[in-house]
Amino acid sequence: MSLTSESDLHESGQSGSRQARPDFEREARKGVPEVIIAERKTAEQSLDIARRFLAANGRAILSRVPPTLEHRLRAEFTDPVILEWLPECRAAILRAPSAEPPFAGGRVGVITAGTSDIPWAEEAALLCREMGCSVHTVYDVGVAGIHRLWEPLQVLLDAVKVDVLIVAAGMDGALPSVVSGLVDVPVVGLPTSVGYGMGGKGEAALLSMLQTCAPGMAVVNIDNGIGAGAMAGLIANRAAAARLGQTDVKEE
Amino acid sequence: MSLTSESDLHESGQSGSRQARPDFEREARKGVPEVIIAERKTAEQSLDIARRFLAANGRAILSRVPPTLEHRLRAEFTDPVILEWLPECRAAILRAPSAEPPFAGGRVGVITAGTSDIPWAEEAALLCREMGCSVHTVYDVGVAGIHRLWEPLQVLLDAVKVDVLIVAAGMDGALPSVVSGLVDVPVVGLPTSVGYGMGGKGEAALLSMLQTCAPGMAVVNIDNGIGAGAMAGLIANRAAAARLGQTDVKEE
Amino acid sequence: MSLTSESDLHESGQSGSRQARPDFEREARKGVPEVIIAERKTAEQSLDIARRFLAANGRAILSRVPPTLEHRLRAEFTDPVILEWLPECRAAILRAPSAEPPFAGGRVGVITAGTSDIPWAEEAALLCREMGCSVHTVYDVGVAGIHRLWEPLQVLLDAVKVDVLIVAAGMDGALPSVVSGLVDVPVVGLPTSVGYGMGGKGEAALLSMLQTCAPGMAVVNIDNGIGAGAMAGLIANRAAAARLGQTDVKEE
Amino acid sequence: MSLTSESDLHESGQSGSRQARPDFEREARKGVPEVIIAERKTAEQSLDIARRFLAANGRAILSRVPPTLEHRLRAEFTDPVILEWLPECRAAILRAPSAEPPFAGGRVGVITAGTSDIPWAEEAALLCREMGCSVHTVYDVGVAGIHRLWEPLQVLLDAVKVDVLIVAAGMDGALPSVVSGLVDVPVVGLPTSVGYGMGGKGEAALLSMLQTCAPGMAVVNIDNGIGAGAMAGLIANRAAAARLGQTDVKEE
Amino acid sequence: MSLTSESDLHESGQSGSRQARPDFEREARKGVPEVIIAERKTAEQSLDIARRFLAANGRAILSRVPPTLEHRLRAEFTDPVILEWLPECRAAILRAPSAEPPFAGGRVGVITAGTSDIPWAEEAALLCREMGCSVHTVYDVGVAGIHRLWEPLQVLLDAVKVDVLIVAAGMDGALPSVVSGLVDVPVVGLPTSVGYGMGGKGEAALLSMLQTCAPGMAVVNIDNGIGAGAMAGLIANRAAAARLGQTDVKEE
Amino acid sequence: MSLTSESDLHESGQSGSRQARPDFEREARKGVPEVIIAERKTAEQSLDIARRFLAANGRAILSRVPPTLEHRLRAEFTDPVILEWLPECRAAILRAPSAEPPFAGGRVGVITAGTSDIPWAEEAALLCREMGCSVHTVYDVGVAGIHRLWEPLQVLLDAVKVDVLIVAAGMDGALPSVVSGLVDVPVVGLPTSVGYGMGGKGEAALLSMLQTCAPGMAVVNIDNGIGAGAMAGLIANRAAAARLGQTDVKEE
Amino acid sequence: MSLTSESDLHESGQSGSRQARPDFEREARKGVPEVIIAERKTAEQSLDIARRFLAANGRAILSRVPPTLEHRLRAEFTDPVILEWLPECRAAILRAPSAEPPFAGGRVGVITAGTSDIPWAEEAALLCREMGCSVHTVYDVGVAGIHRLWEPLQVLLDAVKVDVLIVAAGMDGALPSVVSGLVDVPVVGLPTSVGYGMGGKGEAALLSMLQTCAPGMAVVNIDNGIGAGAMAGLIANRAAAARLGQTDVKEE
Amino acid sequence: MSLTSESDLHESGQSGSRQARPDFEREARKGVPEVIIAERKTAEQSLDIARRFLAANGRAILSRVPPTLEHRLRAEFTDPVILEWLPECRAAILRAPSAEPPFAGGRVGVITAGTSDIPWAEEAALLCREMGCSVHTVYDVGVAGIHRLWEPLQVLLDAVKVDVLIVAAGMDGALPSVVSGLVDVPVVGLPTSVGYGMGGKGEAALLSMLQTCAPGMAVVNIDNGIGAGAMAGLIANRAAAARLGQTDVKEE
Repeated sequence: MSLTSESDLHESGQSGSRQARPDFEREARKGVPEVIIAERKTAEQSLDIARRFLAANGRAILSRVPPTLEHRLRAEFTDPVILEWLPECRAAILRAPSAEPPFAGGRVGVITAGTSDIPWAEEAALLCREMGCSVHTVYDVGVAGIHRLWEPLQVLLDAVKVDVLIVAAGMDGALPSVVSGLVDVPVVGLPTSVGYGMGGKGEAALLSMLQTCAPGMAVVNIDNGIGAGAMAGLIANRAAAARLGQTDVKEE
Repeated sequence: MSLTSESDLHESGQSGSRQARPDFEREARKGVPEVIIAERKTAEQSLDIARRFLAANGRAILSRVPPTLEHRLRAEFTDPVILEWLPECRAAILRAPSAEPPFAGGRVGVITAGTSDIPWAEEAALLCREMGCSVHTVYDVGVAGIHRLWEPLQVLLDAVKVDVLIVAAGMDGALPSVVSGLVDVPVVGLPTSVGYGMGGKGEAALLSMLQTCAPGMAVVNIDNGIGAGAMAGLIANRAAAARLGQTDVKEE
Repeated sequence: MSLTSESDLHESGQSGSRQARPDFEREARKGVPEVIIAERKTAEQSLDIARRFLAANGRAILSRVPPTLEHRLRAEFTDPVILEWLPECRAAILRAPSAEPPFAGGRVGVITAGTSDIPWAEEAALLCREMGCSVHTVYDVGVAGIHRLWEPLQVLLDAVKVDVLIVAAGMDGALPSVVSGLVDVPVVGLPTSVGYGMGGKGEAALLSMLQTCAPGMAVVNIDNGIGAGAMAGLIANRAAAARLGQTDVKEE
Repeated sequence: MSLTSESDLHESGQSGSRQARPDFEREARKGVPEVIIAERKTAEQSLDIARRFLAANGRAILSRVPPTLEHRLRAEFTDPVILEWLPECRAAILRAPSAEPPFAGGRVGVITAGTSDIPWAEEAALLCREMGCSVHTVYDVGVAGIHRLWEPLQVLLDAVKVDVLIVAAGMDGALPSVVSGLVDVPVVGLPTSVGYGMGGKGEAALLSMLQTCAPGMAVVNIDNGIGAGAMAGLIANRAAAARLGQTDVKEE
Repeated sequence: MSLTSESDLHESGQSGSRQARPDFEREARKGVPEVIIAERKTAEQSLDIARRFLAANGRAILSRVPPTLEHRLRAEFTDPVILEWLPECRAAILRAPSAEPPFAGGRVGVITAGTSDIPWAEEAALLCREMGCSVHTVYDVGVAGIHRLWEPLQVLLDAVKVDVLIVAAGMDGALPSVVSGLVDVPVVGLPTSVGYGMGGKGEAALLSMLQTCAPGMAVVNIDNGIGAGAMAGLIANRAAAARLGQTDVKEE
Repeated sequence: MSLTSESDLHESGQSGSRQARPDFEREARKGVPEVIIAERKTAEQSLDIARRFLAANGRAILSRVPPTLEHRLRAEFTDPVILEWLPECRAAILRAPSAEPPFAGGRVGVITAGTSDIPWAEEAALLCREMGCSVHTVYDVGVAGIHRLWEPLQVLLDAVKVDVLIVAAGMDGALPSVVSGLVDVPVVGLPTSVGYGMGGKGEAALLSMLQTCAPGMAVVNIDNGIGAGAMAGLIANRAAAARLGQTDVKEE
Repeated sequence: MSLTSESDLHESGQSGSRQARPDFEREARKGVPEVIIAERKTAEQSLDIARRFLAANGRAILSRVPPTLEHRLRAEFTDPVILEWLPECRAAILRAPSAEPPFAGGRVGVITAGTSDIPWAEEAALLCREMGCSVHTVYDVGVAGIHRLWEPLQVLLDAVKVDVLIVAAGMDGALPSVVSGLVDVPVVGLPTSVGYGMGGKGEAALLSMLQTCAPGMAVVNIDNGIGAGAMAGLIANRAAAARLGQTDVKEE
Repeated sequence: MSLTSESDLHESGQSGSRQARPDFEREARKGVPEVIIAERKTAEQSLDIARRFLAANGRAILSRVPPTLEHRLRAEFTDPVILEWLPECRAAILRAPSAEPPFAGGRVGVITAGTSDIPWAEEAALLCREMGCSVHTVYDVGVAGIHRLWEPLQVLLDAVKVDVLIVAAGMDGALPSVVSGLVDVPVVGLPTSVGYGMGGKGEAALLSMLQTCAPGMAVVNIDNGIGAGAMAGLIANRAAAARLGQTDVKEE
């Protein structure tokens, strides 16, 4: 619960160096692990950073992994390193043998309007799990046929007792507003680039969520599953820390 | 049920004339009366066209009437001319004593998400009534609290047996998609300029409706209540004509 | 003519399931069959959903089918299943041997401004036919040379007696406004992504239709042939049901 | 027919001067008189420039004149100076007693879709007349009821024998495309800021004209009546100079 | 912690009624009180809804109150009703004498980049307080001179121990990203309409926040202080409920 | 010089036909030959239309010809048909042996700012030549180094005596405004999709031309070389017809 | 030439304070004085900040001063305080009697395309002078008639020997590109909100400048005269410091 | 320090020539060498221009070189011509054996927010070096973890004593504003096309920089590394010329 200490300010930035300078301390500082977005890097760059995270933190997370990088990951990271592969969002998690599975106690629900939204919902779920949350997903509940939403929503609220909901939707982006109008937990709206024609790259969904009539929702950018997961994970773990009686979130 | 006959092509367009040339035959040709949108005209222009419609067709419809024009209308059009005033959408209907109330038989339902959408919903309802439809309205059913939608919708469908629904919404524009996913009549989406921030002049609502997941909806432009009414009136009256056994819509 | 009964609300949403949950009851509820938009799904996903629709409803409709999926459809769905292939819009219809051809009686006219608009017009026509309408098409009538429009329009109105017109246009999007100014049936404007430069992905066409001077038109999103067909099919079948004396659309 | 001679390059630009430097030679160089757009200037600035043009060229043209400036113009420019006032576009022309009426011989037709487009059409007509063209106007021919266009168009082409057409339209902007598809003279599209909702400040009209299917049209910006007039005047006067046998446009 | 019970579905929507139907149960259902956005309503409408909320819930909250409405509120709601007035965001809170001050225990920090962002920050703070949170504000810390941020941020995190931060910024919208990169609590980005030129109505700020490099932030629409407050209040109160040992957020 | 006669209205539109209906009479009606934009059509469609134009009019023009179509054109259209190929704009002209080279007498100048603008300038030049104009081109005169513009411009105006100038530019789009400020012939601005970053697909160039300070320019859409050529050809040929003493453009 | 020392980090941000916290040290840190943009503040806020700057630094600069604030400034700040008023940009400078006139030695040229651009050019010039630069202005040189640019430009470069040029333009925004193509000093492009129709609020000018073909120009936002002045002042003063032999910019 | 002499105006523009006319004198006139942007040209065009620059100026610079052109460059330009290859920005520099390495003395610092911004930063650095500046780079300092910025910034300012900073950033574009708020040298903001979702092609970064709260920054277009380098090089070399006592920038 503290700001980065000032001693951090003195790390050296080697003038002229062209090597990536990953933020190994982000997880400690922020409570959110850094994710290597592979689609914006060369395979060499991604592998190099992954190796360094694995060495420093015992874990590396890569998302949007192209097929060629997937092959190289599978070839390089073998026993005793554990490679988990999430096909729907093409993400990989590398774990050192000694790495403990994270536990923080937050409870996150993830809902999608359609099947096409699943890749980004999976990205969000992945990050929440790596932040130590338990995650419960309900996919393809649609807004065309809103009656299919009722029962799974009740399960998430009353049985699972989620601390926060991520609701992913493309096209009309209506589902997050509908959900947010019905529940008493914070909602993170995750617009996806599913759609067609005007507004069809997720803009209509994003704008509709930004204009929601239902208070208690905030949004991340289109297809930003990682961002939605980070926000939801922080929210849920804040509540969990209080549940678990951690000192610094307790009332004094 | 016929195209304008070719003799219409020979009406004279006086080269050089600057007088407005209202389309007095539109109602006969289209089944939709012309509405004088007063906010785009001077009071003199509006009054002049209104007088000419009243003389030609026994009725004149004015919408978006500024206060100064309202006063002049009330001063000029007195008994035996009947002036109906609709305060919520600032519209006026002038009727000659001899004018028959229209009847066509279409049944139209009009729903709004919020109270701020009412002016445009009223414009749509007005035009449908002047096309001879019966109109039933349900206002402020919201999408934040979607459970409030169920019962009035069932009344419109099962008791009123509407031929078509107009659903007006600003902000997130989610309600028309939700309604369209539940009903088996065509839906005309009417986005309104209610909102704030990015997409808040009705763009978010329009785009969300254009991206609807629910088939069976088409939309008009933002705040185009007259256009929504014309579309819905034509749809409903087409069904009504068949119900009433009118020849030209019957199977041969 | 009824809202989904409340018992629908109790279907189970298996928390955590990642299988698509197609809306098999949509046709009964909405009067519009669900179309599998294949371009947004993997071949496996499309085939799986198609098999389930074929089993449940005796028919599956797939649009925007990529060549690889086309091959797999042709390989898997052989006698006695009937596979209809529409090359212009790359759509496929699978029919179980027992499936009755649909009949509802609506009459739909489909007009395009150019030859490039045909794929989406064909999508619209396909859906209308699968909703039981008869469909009449007139393609490439252009607005540059508006005189070529007159005769086919008269045929559609006076001989075919269409209940509704779909008018597809890209580029300037002017044709739907011109048509809507001349006819007394509702018009569904279908903008297409035909064009170039600024506004050339269909935005100019869509905006021009949204700004139409001619009342009695509503629009769907760019290239949304399925949406235009669903709207037009519902309009036409509503009139047809009345023509055929069906109880629930009759005057009581 | 010549480029500005190089001696023009040596006129002094007094460094630091803040007085407007109107381009008194533009008319000689370009064949288009400069118009003082009063709405962007203070009354003092407009009056100062007007006086200087009147002194230098015997004529000053002011457009978009606010009421306060109108009063000051009427007060200051009295006999023997002639003040012409065009109420529809709020323009003023000041003429020195000695100023000859211009004559160049070009023939321009100006058409509008609606009555609301008239102010900008009048601006265009004004400039063409001040460039020495004869101008013929046909207003409010509409695209909703395209049959009203035929006869006046034939008059302009066959009787008046216009060299060029200006077609002004707001909203759907469809009329210029329709006209351009029918005639063999160049068309200048003049989009106007008449409309509502999305694209309603003239963007839909401008984009639709830019996307025209009908070759032989170019456009000016929204509400740029002066620009449309300048383009049309140059086109018409080029043809007129040839008709009148002027040397420099003749075949050698 | 429960979904609206199904009995809510049966409240009657009187077909044809034009009276606003405020959602009196929203606070119970959502944990967020409804705010009457007065700028979108007539004074009569606002007063009517305020009276009904005061009667039903013992409190009414009005935001963006125009001066005329302010006068009417002050005239009507006198002792024993308590009227609190927040001049910076022009909001009013009416309390019945019996109304208990709310307490939920959440701890919210509100930071602004400039002084111009204060009105929306105050709206957010107001809602959080009415949701029972304690609120701590730090205004005008700027990003031009980021060194001024350090100390107040440390106070909020280590002394106040906030559960969530709202960071409001217009113009470049950079401050929320900077803050979010330094802290381990969730951040709600609140873009404001402060700026100039391209992107200057808050779009640049909103887009910059949506594109944040720093995980753990979600955003609301431009100037949506109420929405930011609702999101932050739900987040903080979720953690507070756990701190206070409330049953339904506890681990079972 | 006449409007399409009304007998044209009676050509039959075969309801249901899906064959393209090219406008063979456009050239006679408009003075502009139809160009087959091959990139929007299948090779089969393009070839079919080309054959029909060749048979009907003795000439076919195809632009934006993909390599596969180029091969098929070269294979099919051999002696005595003449195939002209313009590599820079990938256009082909097919001529029947009997086809006379067109002559109308218009004089067109074409200028580009850079080398990247040449393909669209060549499209424009091609169409002007096929309309019977003589065309003079000056490419790559730039605005960064405006001094390079002077001499070629003087040649075009004083030696060639062009009737109209087409000025093509991408990026900043400044050249057409600069040229238009210096010459007394009409200018057709042709923005091209050359650029980068914001506004870099030709939008900046188009907007800059629409905002020109220099009267006497109108524009076509981005990359619309054919449109620019049609407009310029009509302008030039109108002047040429007068020069050549053709009856219908003469003063009576 | 140094970064803010770390001791700055310890200034206290009083949590909860709502008073503006002006950045009194900015001038020392940045070399750019802070300007109070009065149009975004209440008169009270502006006066309060002005008083504090006057007390702390001996000078206060206010821009975009509304008439009511102007009156209050004139009433309050009388002898011995000196109030300078710049009517064209409505700016005020307050100076304590003891305040030395600034001198730094930079040489700045300011050019505008039209008279309407002068207010923002004056803002830029004002800030440069307050940063100790000498400023030379040339207004209304236009791009429609580019030949008028030559001589004043030569004066600025060869006689005045400016270190940097600010070029302000609205509408087509072409002038800065033309200038930048001709000179060897850096150019700061200042787009202004002068224009009409599409792109007419300065967007066309800004985009055209961003797309410039001429290297050596960077831009500020629309109407941001203060920003253009700050950039140019820093550039010119950097060169001046070297000219004046100041240690920290010298080669070592 | 002089404007292009007028004799330049007389170079011949061969009417009809289609060969590129590179601006060989730009470097002498502007102080900025021309860069051949290869991605917009055919390999033949790029090679031809490169050969001509090499012959005329002893150096040719090519950026955004596709792999096929890279191979052809390596094959053709061998000893004694020197080919330097910059892999990160795919740029090539060809030098004649006799070509002196440039020296002008400016000092430029280049900072990037992330690793993905490096290609454009390298383009900028390349151009500055070819303008004779010394360049110091610090990459990947991020805004998420702003504390990492401090030390390298101090090195650039106090040890390297840079005359100007280029700061490249995509996504939120916040870093340039943060830097500009801390330093007293001019900052050139270089937005990059790194990002995702709405505003993710560099628009958010560009808009955020245009809206900066920190005075003393101007920007170039998205990914315009060459433009940023040209601006920074001119700024730095202006100061360097003064440091080196060159006559024409000295005080007289």
